[in-house]
Amino acid sequence: MSVGIIMGSSSDWPTMKLAAEMLDEFGIQYEAKVVSAHRTPKDMVAYAESAGERGFKVIIAGAGGAAHLPGMVASLTNLPVIGVPIESKSLKGLDSLLSIVQMPGGIPVATMAIGEAGAKNAGIFAARMLAISDGDLSSKLSEYTKSLEDKVEAMQNDLK
Amino acid sequence: MSVGIIMGSSSDWPTMKLAAEMLDEFGIQYEAKVVSAHRTPKDMVAYAESAGERGFKVIIAGAGGAAHLPGMVASLTNLPVIGVPIESKSLKGLDSLLSIVQMPGGIPVATMAIGEAGAKNAGIFAARMLAISDGDLSSKLSEYTKSLEDKVEAMQNDLK
Amino acid sequence: MSVGIIMGSSSDWPTMKLAAEMLDEFGIQYEAKVVSAHRTPKDMVAYAESAGERGFKVIIAGAGGAAHLPGMVASLTNLPVIGVPIESKSLKGLDSLLSIVQMPGGIPVATMAIGEAGAKNAGIFAARMLAISDGDLSSKLSEYTKSLEDKVEAMQNDLK
Amino acid sequence: MSVGIIMGSSSDWPTMKLAAEMLDEFGIQYEAKVVSAHRTPKDMVAYAESAGERGFKVIIAGAGGAAHLPGMVASLTNLPVIGVPIESKSLKGLDSLLSIVQMPGGIPVATMAIGEAGAKNAGIFAARMLAISDGDLSSKLSEYTKSLEDKVEAMQNDLK
Amino acid sequence: MSVGIIMGSSSDWPTMKLAAEMLDEFGIQYEAKVVSAHRTPKDMVAYAESAGERGFKVIIAGAGGAAHLPGMVASLTNLPVIGVPIESKSLKGLDSLLSIVQMPGGIPVATMAIGEAGAKNAGIFAARMLAISDGDLSSKLSEYTKSLEDKVEAMQNDLK
Amino acid sequence: MSVGIIMGSSSDWPTMKLAAEMLDEFGIQYEAKVVSAHRTPKDMVAYAESAGERGFKVIIAGAGGAAHLPGMVASLTNLPVIGVPIESKSLKGLDSLLSIVQMPGGIPVATMAIGEAGAKNAGIFAARMLAISDGDLSSKLSEYTKSLEDKVEAMQNDLK
Amino acid sequence: MSVGIIMGSSSDWPTMKLAAEMLDEFGIQYEAKVVSAHRTPKDMVAYAESAGERGFKVIIAGAGGAAHLPGMVASLTNLPVIGVPIESKSLKGLDSLLSIVQMPGGIPVATMAIGEAGAKNAGIFAARMLAISDGDLSSKLSEYTKSLEDKVEAMQNDLK
Amino acid sequence: MSVGIIMGSSSDWPTMKLAAEMLDEFGIQYEAKVVSAHRTPKDMVAYAESAGERGFKVIIAGAGGAAHLPGMVASLTNLPVIGVPIESKSLKGLDSLLSIVQMPGGIPVATMAIGEAGAKNAGIFAARMLAISDGDLSSKLSEYTKSLEDKVEAMQNDLK
Repeated sequence: MSVGIIMGSSSDWPTMKLAAEMLDEFGIQYEAKVVSAHRTPKDMVAYAESAGERGFKVIIAGAGGAAHLPGMVASLTNLPVIGVPIESKSLKGLDSLLSIVQMPGGIPVATMAIGEAGAKNAGIFAARMLAISDGDLSSKLSEYTKSLEDKVEAMQNDLK
Repeated sequence: MSVGIIMGSSSDWPTMKLAAEMLDEFGIQYEAKVVSAHRTPKDMVAYAESAGERGFKVIIAGAGGAAHLPGMVASLTNLPVIGVPIESKSLKGLDSLLSIVQMPGGIPVATMAIGEAGAKNAGIFAARMLAISDGDLSSKLSEYTKSLEDKVEAMQNDLK
Repeated sequence: MSVGIIMGSSSDWPTMKLAAEMLDEFGIQYEAKVVSAHRTPKDMVAYAESAGERGFKVIIAGAGGAAHLPGMVASLTNLPVIGVPIESKSLKGLDSLLSIVQMPGGIPVATMAIGEAGAKNAGIFAARMLAISDGDLSSKLSEYTKSLEDKVEAMQNDLK
Repeated sequence: MSVGIIMGSSSDWPTMKLAAEMLDEFGIQYEAKVVSAHRTPKDMVAYAESAGERGFKVIIAGAGGAAHLPGMVASLTNLPVIGVPIESKSLKGLDSLLSIVQMPGGIPVATMAIGEAGAKNAGIFAARMLAISDGDLSSKLSEYTKSLEDKVEAMQNDLK
Repeated sequence: MSVGIIMGSSSDWPTMKLAAEMLDEFGIQYEAKVVSAHRTPKDMVAYAESAGERGFKVIIAGAGGAAHLPGMVASLTNLPVIGVPIESKSLKGLDSLLSIVQMPGGIPVATMAIGEAGAKNAGIFAARMLAISDGDLSSKLSEYTKSLEDKVEAMQNDLK
Repeated sequence: MSVGIIMGSSSDWPTMKLAAEMLDEFGIQYEAKVVSAHRTPKDMVAYAESAGERGFKVIIAGAGGAAHLPGMVASLTNLPVIGVPIESKSLKGLDSLLSIVQMPGGIPVATMAIGEAGAKNAGIFAARMLAISDGDLSSKLSEYTKSLEDKVEAMQNDLK
Repeated sequence: MSVGIIMGSSSDWPTMKLAAEMLDEFGIQYEAKVVSAHRTPKDMVAYAESAGERGFKVIIAGAGGAAHLPGMVASLTNLPVIGVPIESKSLKGLDSLLSIVQMPGGIPVATMAIGEAGAKNAGIFAARMLAISDGDLSSKLSEYTKSLEDKVEAMQNDLK
Repeated sequence: MSVGIIMGSSSDWPTMKLAAEMLDEFGIQYEAKVVSAHRTPKDMVAYAESAGERGFKVIIAGAGGAAHLPGMVASLTNLPVIGVPIESKSLKGLDSLLSIVQMPGGIPVATMAIGEAGAKNAGIFAARMLAISDGDLSSKLSEYTKSLEDKVEAMQNDLK
């Protein structure tokens, strides 16, 4: 288990599973779990404090609205934490984005884009971090980047 | 001690002391303390969990930027929590406001205006809550409301 | 009747009834009524001025757009007033939120999140306020908080 | 007295006096007064309800933050009401603007720009309204419009 | 013909007809026309310059996006101009609102709410202006205001 | 005279002169003038309609707040029009930007950044347009681009 | 080939084809291609650097979200670049708009409106630029402008 | 050299040096350089493509306004890239934030808060990433976190 994926509610899973799919693509093991800052704050503390000992190297946390999960977990562990702002109903994730990214000096959260693109990128960013000390993973990232180019090539025909 | 006033940093005190001043005006006892969700998360948990036993009836929490303190404390106690969005440097408190007010269903935070007006009103709202079961305090609130009217009267001369 | 739930239009009821449902859950009696700041301003004044005498301890007021009801009622009574910003058509409740929360110093409104989560939390916040002097209600709140944790437990299976 | 100028606080007068200056320029009589929706709601009701009988034909109302004065007065009189959003400290008048302009169907407020330009235009708009049935005033408006052109002419030299 | 209703495109008519319907309700005669600031700027100039001579007393102008029609017409006539921000596709009328309301000192536009509520209120505000010198219209406005109260009464049953 | 620089007020000149300075740098002749959409609408029409005959090839128009000048001029000429949003007092140019850029299909305005950077870029963009059919100017643009690189080189020492 | 139309993804084509249709209407030849700043950065560099040699006179670039394509291409060529902000899912193109228009001094991008109106206008603006040195095209633009007026005429019947 | 700190202009250095100071505190070697996406795009490509070979493990990139540097570098290397939104003059960094964080799926940028807090956190986040495979650094992070707690303790006296 290299990566812990957490989210405030199972309703965030349709977004967050895109992070999981990218980790699958890179062959990185992960655990996905609902951990709510607001409904299970003590479980969140326990989760964050034991994350390092349990072998996690990176935490990906998704939350919407007054999104406190990524920042709180980042306060309770020294592992790098990636935050994914879930699109909210009324303000479309602007609230989620600002409550994740505007962390005070001292406690960083690596914030991704709002919604599915952000979740997908959380998985890729986790891979980039782990690849710092993992040559195989680094090669897989190069292949992935190459596949993005190929997709662009394939798109040219859609313009006719 | 009826009210606990907490804030993420002593730099919030020039704003938050307006809450304290209103409580002084109503003769309500309070304790003011720096409790940071991000720098002292475990102390925050301890503070929130023991707040009821220590006799607090209301918590006033001020925070800026990705402002998690009010919502996290509200998750850890059943006491009513009032949130004060501190004006932030770049986004002028819009980030603070949204990360305090947009709480998910289940965990309410009574959010006040951004900055000094909000801090002042937090003190008054605490008094309104306590006055539900305190007739003397209720009378003081009536006097206070009357004083607001008198100020308006006094302002008329400023328009010449 | 401990709580008065008011709203500017019956079209706000699908949102505001979530406040009522929470009060039902906590066994708190309430009256729900359409009271419009703009269409029935004199009735609003009468309602707010008599609210204390009629035995109300808390007012929950929902309004959308240029949302003046919560702030005006808070100006006419010393009872604690909770404001719920109703999601508006064009600006999605940002207008409702700002016109409720940005009250001047002197007249507080306890503002909740935009829309259904905010209405639900208004009911819970009313319970938290009343529980200050009601031990039974305090126990019910603890049970409710426990039920939130249980829901999170139940959500874990949704992630497969 | 054709026009009533009201504002929530004497601190709004440096802005609102620009409305008065324009009325002076057009020779329109007015009364300027502090009438606060939040601190003197009953006085506001009395003011608005008696405005027609007292001979006012137009009301100009300035307010900032959760700005309820213009909309509430418009609910209590059938006179045309002009709203001036005062620039607020944190949100720079965006809150004032939205809480004045986003009135529900049924109760219109003629909203002007944020701050001094808006106050000045409130005075001019009052003149335009009164000129509907006042030929002399209509001529003065034509002269005023002509003076704006002349100012542009004078500005050309500033570009060297 | 007391009122001219203009709009930038016939696609604005479903919104702007609510202004027309209110004028019908008050028995005020009007002309509705497409006059585009951007596609027919010369016609717009001719329209605005002749509006007074043609007997119009008030202009209601609706426009969306970079909404220049209300402000430009207000620059070309001394009649009072009411602006209605049409809800735009991407920015939901925030662009329309700001480009109508933020007029410079000298040229006022009486801005209404975004969309249908704003169009309806434009019709009512025109009536309020014309009622300054028309007692019958003033009575009709009182009846209309009374009808709003009655609607609120009728809404009470919707809350069961 | 290849380029006409216009602005709504001489107070815009401290910003707009950066456009003029860039044209000077490229040796492009221009005329700078105050032309106000709102205070001198007829002059604006005359200016825009005669711009082509007078030999102008490009118009640069700066305006702030409800900024109608660039769009109106673009409606009255087929020349390419560049719009510069001037920073406004309360909303910091967000109003200026939206009222310039959100033009309806049919009438384009080439919108630049808010404030001084935008004015400077307006001058450069005019040069890029004119260079389409002017090889000398094209060479000057290449030199200018080279000078930007050199500035970056010079900046490295500032980081010690 | 006078104009190069590029976009970050083929999913932008339903928007960007409106630019192509306007170029077709004016008889201007173009090439449409997917060139992604983020997925094919090296191809983007090659495209931009060779654009002048390949005979392009104008580049139209559409992109959404963190929209870097227009600005990057403008950094790599001295040709005039028109940017079209594609409407994004969560923030509705506000992110696209700001990341295209707020270019630093030195590198201009001529920014159009968000979405389809912007794409259409990009085609028209390209025509206006090319018409500087092309009399035939200039005539076509006059006809097009005339057709806009005719459409307004045709719209009058929609108001019955 | 483990970390490359780059920024679009030396005027960003007063902000970005806070990242450098944190790296100094953790004993991490870095190189700070001005690399402009817009003024030196080819140098940026060369920098990003050679970053891995030169031994960099993490890139920290600061940029303001239409901030393209972090995203473009992330497109040209598989190293993890941290983006710091520099506060911009008119829009206070909201433009910088959105143009850094809203990256499309495939190319992640780990976005920090606007301004100095963000730069400081970029340095800390780089340390967290490098500590994944560096036990000593991990211990230093624990000490740093402890020091944050101590600062809170020291702040208590500021509240008297």
